[in-house]
Amino acid sequence: MMSEQQKVEAFAKEYFDQLAPYVRLASVSAKHQHIEETADWLQQKFQTLGAKQTAQWHEFGGSPMVFAEFDGQSERTVLFYNHYDVQPPEPLDEWHTDPFEPTFLPDGTVRARGISDDKGELMSRLTALQYLQDHGGLPCHVKFMVEGEEEVGSTHFEQYVDAHKAELASDLCVWEGGSVNEQEHFNVSGGVKGILAFDLKVQTADVDLHSSLGAYADNAAWRLMDALTSLRTPDRKLAVDGYYDLVAPMSDSTKQAVAKMDFDAEGFKQRAGLRTPFLRDDPKLASVNEPSLTVNGFNAGYNGSGVKTVIPKVATAKLDCRLAQGQTPKACFDLIRKQLDKNGFSDVEMTFNLGEDPFRSDLDSKVYQTVTDVAKAVYGDDNVNVVPNSAGGGPQAPVANSLNVPIVSVGCGYYGSGAHAPNESLRVKDYQTGTYYMVALLRALQ
Amino acid sequence: MMSEQQKVEAFAKEYFDQLAPYVRLASVSAKHQHIEETADWLQQKFQTLGAKQTAQWHEFGGSPMVFAEFDGQSERTVLFYNHYDVQPPEPLDEWHTDPFEPTFLPDGTVRARGISDDKGELMSRLTALQYLQDHGGLPCHVKFMVEGEEEVGSTHFEQYVDAHKAELASDLCVWEGGSVNEQEHFNVSGGVKGILAFDLKVQTADVDLHSSLGAYADNAAWRLMDALTSLRTPDRKLAVDGYYDLVAPMSDSTKQAVAKMDFDAEGFKQRAGLRTPFLRDDPKLASVNEPSLTVNGFNAGYNGSGVKTVIPKVATAKLDCRLAQGQTPKACFDLIRKQLDKNGFSDVEMTFNLGEDPFRSDLDSKVYQTVTDVAKAVYGDDNVNVVPNSAGGGPQAPVANSLNVPIVSVGCGYYGSGAHAPNESLRVKDYQTGTYYMVALLRALQ
Repeated sequence: MMSEQQKVEAFAKEYFDQLAPYVRLASVSAKHQHIEETADWLQQKFQTLGAKQTAQWHEFGGSPMVFAEFDGQSERTVLFYNHYDVQPPEPLDEWHTDPFEPTFLPDGTVRARGISDDKGELMSRLTALQYLQDHGGLPCHVKFMVEGEEEVGSTHFEQYVDAHKAELASDLCVWEGGSVNEQEHFNVSGGVKGILAFDLKVQTADVDLHSSLGAYADNAAWRLMDALTSLRTPDRKLAVDGYYDLVAPMSDSTKQAVAKMDFDAEGFKQRAGLRTPFLRDDPKLASVNEPSLTVNGFNAGYNGSGVKTVIPKVATAKLDCRLAQGQTPKACFDLIRKQLDKNGFSDVEMTFNLGEDPFRSDLDSKVYQTVTDVAKAVYGDDNVNVVPNSAGGGPQAPVANSLNVPIVSVGCGYYGSGAHAPNESLRVKDYQTGTYYMVALLRALQ
Repeated sequence: MMSEQQKVEAFAKEYFDQLAPYVRLASVSAKHQHIEETADWLQQKFQTLGAKQTAQWHEFGGSPMVFAEFDGQSERTVLFYNHYDVQPPEPLDEWHTDPFEPTFLPDGTVRARGISDDKGELMSRLTALQYLQDHGGLPCHVKFMVEGEEEVGSTHFEQYVDAHKAELASDLCVWEGGSVNEQEHFNVSGGVKGILAFDLKVQTADVDLHSSLGAYADNAAWRLMDALTSLRTPDRKLAVDGYYDLVAPMSDSTKQAVAKMDFDAEGFKQRAGLRTPFLRDDPKLASVNEPSLTVNGFNAGYNGSGVKTVIPKVATAKLDCRLAQGQTPKACFDLIRKQLDKNGFSDVEMTFNLGEDPFRSDLDSKVYQTVTDVAKAVYGDDNVNVVPNSAGGGPQAPVANSLNVPIVSVGCGYYGSGAHAPNESLRVKDYQTGTYYMVALLRALQ
């Protein structure tokens, strides 16, 4: 007799064809292609699956947000967050197959734009839902919010969540972006770092000057370098008064989780071809709980071939700060501005670009325990990697704050998915097991 | 009765038409336009003026160098250095008149591409020569070397000078680039600073990394900024061991000349729209005798609009160093390389781009005294500005070293000539008086 895991895994493969049209819709939000068509397909699919109600929210503009609600047996409600938009497929000549035709390959993967980020993940969740409908019905209430602007900055997402608190009320929010890591361990991630992005600009003269004046006339490139390096300590931490005071202390459970967490330092160094040592003695801890100050870009003067003997009048830089728990973009922006002024660089202009708060679920909460217990049951006790919060970002804080709900990121991606790159893929086995995990999780919330 | 000055000034105006075809030849070296034609015109003109011998040297390739020799009454020989090539006239739509038609304007200027840099200067010298031929003959021997690659880096110049030492033998080399400054003082400049230009590049990884790794993964932009700022002291001098030891001490005459030299600090600040203080308490001294380290360009990562959360794998910078007397490009390059290694940046690649030695004439030499005495006689005692060496560069050192000759830069340009810019111009009065100065200088060398 087949186990339920075997049944779900077989069903996931069988049911794939019925969901494949979702991948064929080239819903590239950067070009606003097939957005409404994809939202319609999704709403229709939710209805077919027996939703109690569905909606497309578009009162604030942007791509419509698709909502669906399914009744279940228990009082508990799981809210799934996904997005139906994808990255542009370009460069097209690097794809080995049609980016919008899901293609099963001999190595056990399935390839398509969005198959990992994030259409495959939603397909896996819909498959779990259909399986449960066919085998005794949903064990708990299930809701979906699927936005269409994730790849272009989730511009309207927070507004929609805030306006639809009541419809979105839930006990657990299951986020996108889950995966199996390089150690073949199933990631259970309970949050994100925050982010602050800003531009710097300094102008030292009305015109570019001849470099023969360089012995006494100031230079925008030097000035911006001086300003930037004044923001770092010799050991490459932020030299910004009060910056680290904002970082919330870690709970004991978080400390324990970090201690147990996978971190393949050597593998990462090799894959990235890293040529310098890590900036921190404990990069694993830094990935969870340390702020960063990253220069994304720096531009000044002449950068072509040959020689141009010029003193640039303007220099610009683009930066992002990853924020630890407790820090907010606004507070960090203000502290950096204050520090630049204090360091004598009030002429350096600072322009806010974007900000997102950090968020971390309470690892001790009952529902979080259920998530990890089910993961251990499905993947094995030693194959579950609890990440208190990822090093990356995402709009989790507004959801958690608006809905007062823990958030966990679990799914069916893998370390080699190549999200945003040509030949994006999923491993079929991860898709199958990830689908069974969702069935098991919903059953556990009965 | 007219003075000789009045006669020469009248003749300069009258004779202009006969030389105007030289300006009409659009000898743009960057596009190798009308180069041979212009060299031919010049050689022909030298013959018409009664040269003892003329030549076009082209054995090393590049644009031909035009040489001419005229016999005179004394044993002394003056060698004029000029160039017959000009900058491209673009942007054409900013010219108010045809760039290659010398146009006399109501404000007393004459406008054309190259009229200041440097065709008008040679025309003034040819006029002085013709005048002297018509009035008793040349007082001393006169030679001309006129190159056709000055605006594209004088690529073959040094080779030709070296190969033709015998023909170029002289007692004084009168350079191009002379002018009347903002204080309406006639500049007498005895040299140039040297220059070293090089590129820096650092690579920290094989690929651009996601900036969520910024808390521990190194960043090429930060690394290059750290390397560069490690080369400067807090008061913005070069922090390079042994660098200042190479600077030759100034002679007493040089110190006195610097003390008397014009330097319009406030005027420069206003014209350039300078928004920060000078890097030195004594910018005038710095312009003559201090080395510089100028960032001409810096580029890393993403510099477009919006946000790209990336850790750049590569950062590059372009730099030039103006060298004080005593310093050489090779020695300075090696010291900077050594310092980068010592500071822990041996991974920062350093590529030599170009180098020119500094040069300064002996202000106490008899011939230099003659040059300044004649200037005072023509322009007035208080209207001569002796510049021991300019802040800019030029291939004077190879000439001085090959030919063992003092070099002085005097001529008929003015501060508003706009060399390299649209609507380049000369003041007719400067052209006339500058021509008389040349007549008087050659007479003084009888």
